[in-house]
Amino acid sequence: MNNLPQHVKIVEVGPRDGLQNEKEAVSARVKIELVDRLSRAGFMNIEAASFVSPKWVPQMATSAEVMAGIERRPGTLYSALTPNMQGFEAALAAGAGEVVIFGSASEAFSHKNINCSIAESIARFEPVARAAREHGLRLRGSVSCAFGCPYQGEVPLEAVADVVGRMRDLGCDEIDIADTIGVSTPRKTQAVMQTAARAFALERISGHFHDTYGQALANIYASLEVGVAIFHSSVAGLGGCPYARGATGNVATEDVLYLLDGLGIQTGVDLQQVVDAGAFISAQLGRKGASRVGNALLAKHAG
Amino acid sequence: MNNLPQHVKIVEVGPRDGLQNEKEAVSARVKIELVDRLSRAGFMNIEAASFVSPKWVPQMATSAEVMAGIERRPGTLYSALTPNMQGFEAALAAGAGEVVIFGSASEAFSHKNINCSIAESIARFEPVARAAREHGLRLRGSVSCAFGCPYQGEVPLEAVADVVGRMRDLGCDEIDIADTIGVSTPRKTQAVMQTAARAFALERISGHFHDTYGQALANIYASLEVGVAIFHSSVAGLGGCPYARGATGNVATEDVLYLLDGLGIQTGVDLQQVVDAGAFISAQLGRKGASRVGNALLAKHAG
Repeated sequence: MNNLPQHVKIVEVGPRDGLQNEKEAVSARVKIELVDRLSRAGFMNIEAASFVSPKWVPQMATSAEVMAGIERRPGTLYSALTPNMQGFEAALAAGAGEVVIFGSASEAFSHKNINCSIAESIARFEPVARAAREHGLRLRGSVSCAFGCPYQGEVPLEAVADVVGRMRDLGCDEIDIADTIGVSTPRKTQAVMQTAARAFALERISGHFHDTYGQALANIYASLEVGVAIFHSSVAGLGGCPYARGATGNVATEDVLYLLDGLGIQTGVDLQQVVDAGAFISAQLGRKGASRVGNALLAKHAG
Repeated sequence: MNNLPQHVKIVEVGPRDGLQNEKEAVSARVKIELVDRLSRAGFMNIEAASFVSPKWVPQMATSAEVMAGIERRPGTLYSALTPNMQGFEAALAAGAGEVVIFGSASEAFSHKNINCSIAESIARFEPVARAAREHGLRLRGSVSCAFGCPYQGEVPLEAVADVVGRMRDLGCDEIDIADTIGVSTPRKTQAVMQTAARAFALERISGHFHDTYGQALANIYASLEVGVAIFHSSVAGLGGCPYARGATGNVATEDVLYLLDGLGIQTGVDLQQVVDAGAFISAQLGRKGASRVGNALLAKHAG
């Protein structure tokens, strides 16, 4: 059997990718407490803000307030989504350590969502990439629909390689390969990850898996087998699935940590503190969290 | 990468192991319809009944009625749990094709649950094993707590090897290695399966995983990697977790099928029919099913 990585970085995306997809907007005060709880749990990287127009994404309107209010834990990188230069300027002013740009591996998704081709959408980020370099900010590129698309179905491997290459050429420090609709299974996952690794350094590729079909942990394990060592996850599974209401979305951080802990892989993150942070935000949202580990540990301690 | 098995047998345990652990008893009529829907979906093996004292397990009191009422699909094996000779006689009369005996890999669990040692508990099944052989019924042995125990915690590999050897000597045709509390992770799973395979033929070993900590599919994938080709699962995740109320129990059949379909592994089972059977029994129980695939497909078709 292959050796698995000894260390894994978990990028906690709950405060941004998670809460952005929740129906109810959460107050800046609650978001600040969530981010601070996550920092204290040990995450080295938290996606905390998105500087998009509040007309498009009202859930993220308080991003500047959140970034100003959080406690900056030394060593933790706070990331912000920046769709354009206006967003970049706001992220810079807010003290983000990393800015995130995005594109799709699916032409159909790109046209449907932002009304331009994949190549055009990446080219539009050139000014942001340049500005990030000039200001010494880290640049992350996120590739959606790398394993399948809600509009076109199959996504060819060459399309993944192409968009990863474009993001590399833009100067990305890290590139996320995302299963936006959660359709992948392990061998497909390995093929996509190995394709991405032919265009970009494997140690700076991350896997962003959704648990819509329950496959996320199997896909993460399969990714570990081919050497991927960065994963995205969302505390309490925050986020849901925008393509099937009532279905599961982002894989829950607690479940990923349990897997990694069981495999003897170091993350620097304390599971119980994440479970507590998940209980906190789930209570704020007035519902049961979507993490199986969270629910099992909370039930066990209650019982 | 290792080759995975090309064919997998799924043992559908929802009607017995699932419904037995549900708070509310389900009528014989509903159980019959559930079993018939599952047979038609293509399962070659369904755990349909348990001939235990109705004083202990009132949910299974109608087992004879269920076995008499179901449509026997040619090629499908209907299994029944038989704790003793009285249970065996009832299973034989009911036309079960396979009887299931059980033991634990954990001494603490054995003492706590049936007040005797593992060795004693297996020896007590000798008359059942002999009778099964005499009447040409298939014999299956189920090993609980093979990956961890709610009372003693860790379970040594030698204990798994020992109980598997005892069940082999009793004449079992198939042996289940069960993660009763859902605590395993992939590398542990592979070590336990490989230990069991040193005492019994790998092609007749099955994996019974619970999804309490969300690890079941990762564990199934890891089991496939070491050649395990029989898995238990429960439609709509019926069963819950008796050790942590509100937590997840049996892995959902729909999720396992999605994984196997994605890996190109043949099962002979039609996913959509299983999703429909899951929707049927979940409606009868008055709640949302616990299968992520089931919920995603139902949401997609509704949306």
